[in-house]
Amino acid sequence: MNELTLVLDNAGSTPLYEQIYQYIKNEIKSGKIECKTKLPSARSLARHLQVSRSTVDMAYTQLISEGYIESVPCKGYYVCEISLLYDINMPKKSTKVHRTKPVEEKLIDFTPNGIDLEYFPFGMWRKISRSILNEERKELFDSGDSKGDINLRRNICNYLFEARNVHCTPDNIIIGAGNDYLMTLLCRLMNRTRVIAMESPTYQRAYQVFRANDKSIVTVNVEKDGIDVESIRMTDADMVYVMPSHQYPLGTVMSIRKRNQLLKWANEKDFRYIIEDDYDSEFRYHGKPIPALMGIDNTDKVIYIGTFSKSIAPAIRMSYMVLPEQLMNLYEEKISFYSQTVSRIDQAVVSEFIENGSFERHLNKMRSIYREKHDLVISNLKEMGDLISIYGANAGLHIVIKVNNGMTEKELIDRARAAGIKVYPLSEYYIDGMEKEKNAVIMGFAKLNHSEIQKGISILKEIWKGNGGII
Amino acid sequence: MNELTLVLDNAGSTPLYEQIYQYIKNEIKSGKIECKTKLPSARSLARHLQVSRSTVDMAYTQLISEGYIESVPCKGYYVCEISLLYDINMPKKSTKVHRTKPVEEKLIDFTPNGIDLEYFPFGMWRKISRSILNEERKELFDSGDSKGDINLRRNICNYLFEARNVHCTPDNIIIGAGNDYLMTLLCRLMNRTRVIAMESPTYQRAYQVFRANDKSIVTVNVEKDGIDVESIRMTDADMVYVMPSHQYPLGTVMSIRKRNQLLKWANEKDFRYIIEDDYDSEFRYHGKPIPALMGIDNTDKVIYIGTFSKSIAPAIRMSYMVLPEQLMNLYEEKISFYSQTVSRIDQAVVSEFIENGSFERHLNKMRSIYREKHDLVISNLKEMGDLISIYGANAGLHIVIKVNNGMTEKELIDRARAAGIKVYPLSEYYIDGMEKEKNAVIMGFAKLNHSEIQKGISILKEIWKGNGGII
Repeated sequence: MNELTLVLDNAGSTPLYEQIYQYIKNEIKSGKIECKTKLPSARSLARHLQVSRSTVDMAYTQLISEGYIESVPCKGYYVCEISLLYDINMPKKSTKVHRTKPVEEKLIDFTPNGIDLEYFPFGMWRKISRSILNEERKELFDSGDSKGDINLRRNICNYLFEARNVHCTPDNIIIGAGNDYLMTLLCRLMNRTRVIAMESPTYQRAYQVFRANDKSIVTVNVEKDGIDVESIRMTDADMVYVMPSHQYPLGTVMSIRKRNQLLKWANEKDFRYIIEDDYDSEFRYHGKPIPALMGIDNTDKVIYIGTFSKSIAPAIRMSYMVLPEQLMNLYEEKISFYSQTVSRIDQAVVSEFIENGSFERHLNKMRSIYREKHDLVISNLKEMGDLISIYGANAGLHIVIKVNNGMTEKELIDRARAAGIKVYPLSEYYIDGMEKEKNAVIMGFAKLNHSEIQKGISILKEIWKGNGGII
Repeated sequence: MNELTLVLDNAGSTPLYEQIYQYIKNEIKSGKIECKTKLPSARSLARHLQVSRSTVDMAYTQLISEGYIESVPCKGYYVCEISLLYDINMPKKSTKVHRTKPVEEKLIDFTPNGIDLEYFPFGMWRKISRSILNEERKELFDSGDSKGDINLRRNICNYLFEARNVHCTPDNIIIGAGNDYLMTLLCRLMNRTRVIAMESPTYQRAYQVFRANDKSIVTVNVEKDGIDVESIRMTDADMVYVMPSHQYPLGTVMSIRKRNQLLKWANEKDFRYIIEDDYDSEFRYHGKPIPALMGIDNTDKVIYIGTFSKSIAPAIRMSYMVLPEQLMNLYEEKISFYSQTVSRIDQAVVSEFIENGSFERHLNKMRSIYREKHDLVISNLKEMGDLISIYGANAGLHIVIKVNNGMTEKELIDRARAAGIKVYPLSEYYIDGMEKEKNAVIMGFAKLNHSEIQKGISILKEIWKGNGGII
């Protein structure tokens, strides 16, 4: 090739090697230097441009690493064949749709999601976070145990024993960034399980995760004391997903009889398992807590999933799963390569939050705050008399009401909405499209204060009066 | 039934309702009260025991919710049929194997995993964390956007534009708790994609995630400037996983020619995609950074995955994925129900870390620290002369060396290990069991200090001298 006609700018801010690199790259891209052309040797180009040899070396190294030229041993540098099918400078086409959600006006929102953050112990949280960061515990920034840090698992283990009567060891606990993640991990673990039995209505998110993980779902009958085990037997299901302490959304508590039947079913075949989602068991307002199903299982057939989303906060993204021995061995063998998904600092904060007693105090406080709200909701609703039936009271952060005024679910919701109140459709929790209740709605109360609850329900009382024909 | 012969302890710490509940429960479990037996009404039992009516109500409510008794409307309370197949008090059988790993003696460990935490800006990290927690931003404890908080996505978007020449919008970015998680999410999204093409050797974790998600993997030829696109064409693959800026483990940089060929391949069919894992592109020591493949793609065929594991710390568990428009629409439609996996506080900390310039300063500092270590490794290794060949230098946190002394990979590693040095087998990164190099090892340098690097390599030089026959 001819000598490169490059004029270097010694005074500019661009390094010399980069000027050389840019020049040659542009000459190649524009076709001025053709493919297969031999470039001058680094030594001769350096002499020609009056720069050091290493400057040219750096430019050539960059051109090689980006594939514009190649070094042929004992021969020299050659321009590569570049089929520039895509113009690098062409603006990228975009079919962008702006996805911000419209801002909603201020409503009294009986959402079943979220918690009351008014009483969150920010002070303690800050204190623990500070003290952990102050210690400069460098190891907390390095990779940790794929199942989660041992201290946190030990504290969760103690908590489960005290509060839920669950006997496990820290070795059987896996921490993860939320229930969706842990259930996805579980689906990966259980890839021989094809069919999962679920109640209907049920927790939609679990259904969606199973479906997204290519599991088939069969819905089975539910009676007033829990899932109908006989109807599971009539399916191909090898796994069943239940919430024995407080079914979502109906609030049913599974009876001891049903629990035993379910364990018996699981024991009839190898590799049959029960997933117990114990999502809000911390909040039971009247009577003693309902013990976990895993607590009465001596046969290692229950997969227990718990979360800090309700008991601490949704945004900390922390859940835990207790696996039976057989599955834990499978986990170690098959999928323990998966990195832990929760940051080690967050794990250390929550671990200390449990260990120093803050978690227990916080739970007791929140239980009493939610109990007051719950009781207020129930006493206000009871003023509607026979107009409504209440389901799933005494626990959790929501209830279901059936409104017997002739209105459909949609009419109930639309009319409430027009009056500035949001209540939620029960029908969306049915996974087989065969909802039994066409006139029931879900009302959460965690995020509302007392006056909002009272105002909201008194408005509902007015607009749901038995004159459904007007709408 | 006969009257309950219960003696209440008015002075004890156990509430009266619980004494009643416990007594009746035990009587039922022991069979002393038979199933179908009618219990006394709450009113008459209260009178009999001389307690308030509400005390008995609470005991009965608890017994109902646990399934021991049921309330038959207009009739009264009846004991349920309980097939106590599993004895609640039987100790749980355990087949526990203790899983703690043996403690290893102090070695000079050339691990390719982990980073140098000596220079981590703990002070700034603490300052940002404190200021965020001090503001008591309650919304940070509530559920957030499933794709990640908009501020963080905006900052990542700017960073990708500045540093990687990637043009995207915050709307196309999804934050997630690590690459394993994001790739799992991607597999859920791409469930019509059955076959993925990979290089061999490659990043094992990606291979494991794909396999755990039921994808078939085909390995294709790799040339010295990257993947052989013709050999992808001979497979059924609709997706290819590559690391164009710095292939793991070999350190190859994909040439511009190969990049264009790959984009052409992807454009030959609808729903063909390229996964670009840009895991350590921040650390390039000589020459300019290699731009991302996504930066030259105008056809929306590249799925970009980046991580803060190398650039900030592995333990913060934060990665990001940029999706093409078609896949983003599919995500919104199919799997946006998945909750975000990174805590909102962590998101806020990293967002501020980028926004206030700390990230850039940290990267520049670490690049210079790693460059010194890299150069020290290379210059020390070069003293071995023809005994070794070095691959993948000038970038990243590891290199590969081929040792031409007649020893096998295993001999090289065993001999090093016996002398207190850990180096890592390249063979483990081959996914088809057909490794080409039987005498190559991986050496990471991020976690070692200068004297460890010098000492380690001088020992290796001694023990790997050309007398392989002795071992």
